[in-house]
Formats: sequence, structure tokens, C-alpha cells
Amino acid sequence: MVSAVSQSDLNRLIAELAGLEIITDVAQVSKLSQDYYTYSPLLQDALADKRGDIVVKVTSEAEVLRVAKACVNHRVPLTVRGAGTGNYGQCVPLAGGVILDVSGMQQVKWVKPGIACVEPGAKLAAIDKQTRESGWEIRMAPSTYRKATIGGFIGGGSGGIGSITYGQLRDRGNLLALRVVTMEAEPQVVELRGDDVYKVAHAWGTNGIITELEIPLAPAYAWAEAIVAFNDFMTSARFGQALGNSDGILKKMVCICADPLPTYFAALKSSIPAGSHVALVLVAECSLEPFAELVKEFGGEVCYQKLAQEASKGITLVEYSWNHTTLHARSVDPTLTYLQTLFPDDPELKVLEHLYDHYGDEVMMHLEFIRVGGSVRPVGLQVVRYTTGDRLQEIMDYHESVNAYIFNPHTYILEEGGRKTVDIQHLRFKERVDPLGLLNPGKMKAWLERRS
Amino acid sequence: MVSAVSQSDLNRLIAELAGLEIITDVAQVSKLSQDYYTYSPLLQDALADKRGDIVVKVTSEAEVLRVAKACVNHRVPLTVRGAGTGNYGQCVPLAGGVILDVSGMQQVKWVKPGIACVEPGAKLAAIDKQTRESGWEIRMAPSTYRKATIGGFIGGGSGGIGSITYGQLRDRGNLLALRVVTMEAEPQVVELRGDDVYKVAHAWGTNGIITELEIPLAPAYAWAEAIVAFNDFMTSARFGQALGNSDGILKKMVCICADPLPTYFAALKSSIPAGSHVALVLVAECSLEPFAELVKEFGGEVCYQKLAQEASKGITLVEYSWNHTTLHARSVDPTLTYLQTLFPDDPELKVLEHLYDHYGDEVMMHLEFIRVGGSVRPVGLQVVRYTTGDRLQEIMDYHESVNAYIFNPHTYILEEGGRKTVDIQHLRFKERVDPLGLLNPGKMKAWLERRS
Repeated sequence: MVSAVSQSDLNRLIAELAGLEIITDVAQVSKLSQDYYTYSPLLQDALADKRGDIVVKVTSEAEVLRVAKACVNHRVPLTVRGAGTGNYGQCVPLAGGVILDVSGMQQVKWVKPGIACVEPGAKLAAIDKQTRESGWEIRMAPSTYRKATIGGFIGGGSGGIGSITYGQLRDRGNLLALRVVTMEAEPQVVELRGDDVYKVAHAWGTNGIITELEIPLAPAYAWAEAIVAFNDFMTSARFGQALGNSDGILKKMVCICADPLPTYFAALKSSIPAGSHVALVLVAECSLEPFAELVKEFGGEVCYQKLAQEASKGITLVEYSWNHTTLHARSVDPTLTYLQTLFPDDPELKVLEHLYDHYGDEVMMHLEFIRVGGSVRPVGLQVVRYTTGDRLQEIMDYHESVNAYIFNPHTYILEEGGRKTVDIQHLRFKERVDPLGLLNPGKMKAWLERRS
Repeated sequence: MVSAVSQSDLNRLIAELAGLEIITDVAQVSKLSQDYYTYSPLLQDALADKRGDIVVKVTSEAEVLRVAKACVNHRVPLTVRGAGTGNYGQCVPLAGGVILDVSGMQQVKWVKPGIACVEPGAKLAAIDKQTRESGWEIRMAPSTYRKATIGGFIGGGSGGIGSITYGQLRDRGNLLALRVVTMEAEPQVVELRGDDVYKVAHAWGTNGIITELEIPLAPAYAWAEAIVAFNDFMTSARFGQALGNSDGILKKMVCICADPLPTYFAALKSSIPAGSHVALVLVAECSLEPFAELVKEFGGEVCYQKLAQEASKGITLVEYSWNHTTLHARSVDPTLTYLQTLFPDDPELKVLEHLYDHYGDEVMMHLEFIRVGGSVRPVGLQVVRYTTGDRLQEIMDYHESVNAYIFNPHTYILEEGGRKTVDIQHLRFKERVDPLGLLNPGKMKAWLERRS
């Protein structure tokens, strides 16, 4: 797609933004137009040629207001970018225009017991570094924790490490307040609190530019890391479910990888017995003894364990979980792709077992246990041996036919990736704050269909 | 029942314990032989005349060893007592002998992040006072929190305030280690860790004298208190379930009381609209905004709210929850008694609704939501308008017939109150550490039947 923005409009816009840091170099702009959608062969085809016209780097809400106003003036699309660690093209501009790079807005404005106020470009690891000084940490994070920004995570993520205790970002209480800049002729700052935060959360920057967030914090336990090896996959999965259900054992991550996934983990595989199915876990040090009893009950073998102090240096298991599992597999075999699956509420894991048996090595089972509405369930981020787009679709269709719900990671349309329903409050809020449809155009189906 | 101990044995025992604090005054010994079994008209009949012969107050493990040895020497029964706040006669001696009062062993030996080591006579509130200095508190407590001892809670309790997050005492991780003194000819100190702690936990002091405990701690959030009023009971119950399932909202207590129970709450009732069904809750201050949204969703009215600082003075809602609900009702009408019920895993609360409709005012519904094996469920501590023992039994039988499992609070037999099965590891451990059956005799059915 060619940019929809004329050079003359662009020149006027650049002039209007004098004093801000603007990148026009084509190579740099191209690089900053991309994210990690490359996991998906379908998205590779769809997004490889998409780029913005310029990148504007902002460091304050006042600067965001200036850029918003200029973009509205000149009818230039604006796509917000954090660290660009998303996997669905959330921050890839479909219609050119301005890439608004907010990674320079990285202040932690304040930390109170259980709450922090941060700017959207603050990296998750950097927030933790500051909040841990007073004994707190963020409740949940993606595996891109070191690089990813909080704004990007709230705008385009759903949960992650920590979700085994606190559920998902969309659960009430996991996001307390937001400030957003609107794309009105005279851009405004709107503060959203309570349920109103969901007008903007997980809307991929289509309906407001986040400039500040209040997020809840969790107690910063000393998290020990362990790998537990099992002889058969279903025992490892049942162990994961049981650990999730163990209310007295504090944990932050319960990741299950079927053989042969561990063979892709270069830095870990020497610790893992060949042919094993493994659980990668983060458990509070004060829960290690009861954890060991649970391992014993399931006949597992702890083949790797580090206390928190040691785990904080070098390799962390966090970087082998969630979407990083696929990253490591793809670094060995770039033809691999993946699925995202919510298994049904099925305590005996029968649907999981059926799918594991059904696909064998074609769909390598990777589970993350999380809380969903008060119960522990596995989410699948299965690594798939890709052949064709049709076969991939067939696999996803079959999953849905057995009630394993697919969160399709092979689409750049907001509503097609998640719950597959139009979020009417996203749409209504967009009508109010972005009446010209300039924010991240082409991503929100509800908006596109409204205008057609 | 007359004491089984002869005066001459008793005299020799007293002589052997020279230097320890011994109470022989009949009135005082009688008082220290009782607990709060008076909630049950059946237990009143069964236990009113039960008393020990003497009380020995100990302040150290070394003193416990001396008493144990002397009791074994003279074949004198020994019943351990903490604060005597139990409700099932756990510490009422059935065969006379020594009441071992451990309330003088009240040290908090050390506090680490997430773990404390305490003596059994330490009061729960006193432990919290010390651990909160470093940001921690005990994970769960009964409503007798101010008076109850940790040894008594571990020996005779099952869960309480905090169980909505951490499950019950019997869940792995909620008790880390125990030291117990045995009743062998040469009493030993045995340390139990991991799953071995369940050899002694919840055995009512029948198979070892607890002298030290390692307990896990929870982060000490600033707990706000609120009462939410509802027009109909089932909405209040569904609100409780939804709050329990809200993984992003941190809570410590979710107690639901059907009308007319709130009318028994003298100090609170002026705050509660007449005819209301109420939720009494403890919610972390950092979760108050999302909590308010949940209240709104269910059409509730927050009729009472205190921030943590204010709640720490004067009345606390904790003292209207769990067994204290019954206490307040009985302080108005001493003919009332109660049930203890685990409702089935029934997310729509149909069994609850049926029982609420079925009994009306005869069984006034009081629920505490807790985690059971990873899921949130209500436990009932219904307040019953007592008529006869037969009718009470009929009510309990009917509950069980609809899969509402009764933890019978009208028995002083260990196995009949709880899971109604013999705990073989309790029995095996008793055979080893109390071969003469001197510890709290008459309570463990498995032991009685083994000897008959």
C-alpha cells in the first residue's frame, strides 16, 4: 500500500512540528513501522510493505497534543508505537502517516503501596526496577518484559507472566486509570477511571493516545525459577493444572512445553533430560517446600532450579515462556508458526489431550496456565509446523469445533484476533475522540464497517 | 464423666512438676476446661461436665517435655489448650488429667519475607503486629483473631478470613513446618516439614504437642472495609461469587448475610438499610475503584466503608464474619445454633438458592466465600432457629441429600466434624508418638475403634 498522505501535506506537518524530534530517513522509518508479526506467515505477506511516512518522537503529553493537532489539521494518519514488540501488526501503519514513538515518555511518576503511575513508554522491566525498591512489582508482563513498554502492553496485550494469579488485563482491577489525548480539531486530554478504562485498553491505539497510566502492583516476592521434567505430556499438563489450583503455593508462571519444544531452548537444553516434557515455573521462595511435594506427587524431576537472587542474573525462564517459546523455536526453524488457544473449562483436560493426540508433532503443545474468571485454565501457544495457509486455517477451525477457542494471531484486524465481537464501547469512544478515523486506520473492523 | 486419674497419681505428678505454674483451683480448672462449644445445644449437653484435674502453664519446649514425661510416667491424660476459642470442644478434656496451657509460649522467633516462625501460644493478632512491621501478615485467621492462638488455629481450625485468596489450612503451602513433643516414655521433639505437617495439623492435639510452627505470610495490604446492601439475597450471593472470581480485585473477606442476620449486629445495624441482605468485605485500598464498579454492576449500595487506617480502630467487620456472625446472633437470641456447609461446585448457586427458599427463616443464610482447590465456592455458616436435636439432624441430612456437604459442628469427634473419613496418617503418627493414647483421649475415632 502506498501512503495516502501527499508530500505537500507532509511538508506542512513537519514544518508545524518544528522543534520535535522527527525521523524522515526511509530505512529508519521502515524499521520503526514494523513489529514482530513475522511469527505469522500470513501477516508477513500482508504487512511487509507497510510503512509510515515519518516518525515523531515525543517526550511529554504537551508534545503529543501538538502532534495530534497537526495530524488532525492535515488529515494525516497517526499510529502509536512503543517498543514494537507486538505480534499482530498492532503498530504497523496501514495507511502511512505519522508513527508516534512514545518510547521517550518513560517516567514512573509515583509509586504508592499497590499502585504506580507511569508514562506509556516506560519499559516493564524499568518500572519493576523502581517499584521493587519499595517491595512492589507489576502484576503481569509479556515475555518481552525487558523491551516492551507499558503503553504497548495495555494497548495491545492481554496478559502474561503473572496471569496465573491476577487473571488478564481485561479483568477489573488490573488497570486503574488512563489519560488519553484525543484526535479532535482541538485535541483534549481525557482521564478514564474505573470501567471506563476499557474504552481504550486493548484497542490498539485506534481511539486515543495513551499518555499516562495508573496500574496496580503486586508484592515483589523472591521468585525462584525451576524446570520440572516429566516422562509424558499429559502428566506435565496435569501438574500445571494442579499447581495453578494450589491456592497455598504462590506462583507467577506455569508454562508447559511438550517435547520436542525444549530442544529449541539452546541455553537450557543441556539441563533438560532428552525426550522430556517440561514445566517452566516461577514460584515464591517461601513456597518452594510445598512446591517440591507437588512435584513429587506427580513424579516430576526438578532438573533446573535457581533462587531469586541467582535467577535475576543471566538467563531467566520468563524469556522461554509465552510468545518467547515460539521465538526460540523460530530462531532454530523459521518456518514454524503458532496458534493462540483458550481451552474450555475442562478440569480433566480432555480437549487438550484429544488435540495433543490428534496432531502429534505438527502442533507442538505449549501451554500457559492462567486464571480466567476465577478458575485456572490452560491457554495454548502451540508451535505449528507450517505448510500452507489453508492447512493453518483448517487446524484453527478444527480447534474451534472441539471448543478450543482460537485467538487468531494471523490477522491484523482488532476484532478478529480476540473475542471476535465488535466492542461497541471501543467504537463509541472512537466516534467521540477520533471522528476523522486517523488513529491506526484499518485495524478496527467496527469502524470500517460503520463507514462502508 | 468423672476423672479417670486417681488423686495419688495426680499428687505424684504435681510433685514431679515442681517449679512449673500449676493451677488446681476447681473453679479455674473448670473454666480452663471449656471452649465455645456452647454454640451447639448438643455439645452443651455432652460437654458441660467435662473438666481436667489440673492446669499446667508452660512457657518453653523444655517445660513441655517435662510435662509430657511426667504424664507418661503416671499415665495421666494431657489435653493442650491455647485460647480456648474453638467451637467443637477440641480442647475440652473428656477423661480429666492435665490441661496443658501453652498460651505462655508466645514468641515470634523470626520473620523473613513471606515466612514467620512462632510459638503455638502466640495470638494471631500479636503475630500480625510484629510481622506488619516488615509488610507482612498471616495468610488466614478465624474471626477470633484477637484472642485465638496460632497453635489452636492449626490444631483445630480449617480456614477463615484470607481463605478467599489462599484457600484453607489443609492446602499445601499454608503451613510450612511444625515441631511437636511426643508422649513416649522418653518424650522426643520431632520436626515435620513439607507434607509431613499434615500428620499433626487439624488433629486436635491428639498426636503430638505443637511447640513451634513455621507459617507462610501474606503481603499486608491496606485493607478497606465495606458493607454492601442488596434488595434480594440471591443477588448478594451472586455478588459474593463474582467478587471471589474477580482475579484483579484483591480481597481478604467476602461474607454474605441474609436478612434478618444484620439485625443482630448491634454496632452496625444503624448503617444497614432495614430488610437488606449484606456483603461484609475486606478489599485492598488499591482495588477500591474496580470494587465500586462491581458493586454498581450488581445494583448494590455501599452503606458503610472505612479505609484501612480508620478500620484498624474500633469495630472491624472481621468480628462479624465466620463464627462471629453466630456469636452476635446468639448474643441476642441464645437459642440459635448453626451449621457448617460446603456448597457444591455450582457456579450458578442453584443448590444454595434451593436451600434458601426451602428453609426460609428457620435457616438464616450466612456465606463465606473461599477458594477450594483453585475455585471460589461459598461455605455456609447458617444460623439455625433450634427446636430439637432430631430436627437439626433432619436439616443436616437434607443438606447432604442435595450435595451441600455438612461439616458437623455438633460433634466432638474429630472425624465426624470434618471430612468424615479416618485420616490414616493421623492414626499412624499417633501410634508412634502417643502409644498410650494419652493425648486428648476420646476425640480420635480411628484410635478408639482400633482399640475396641
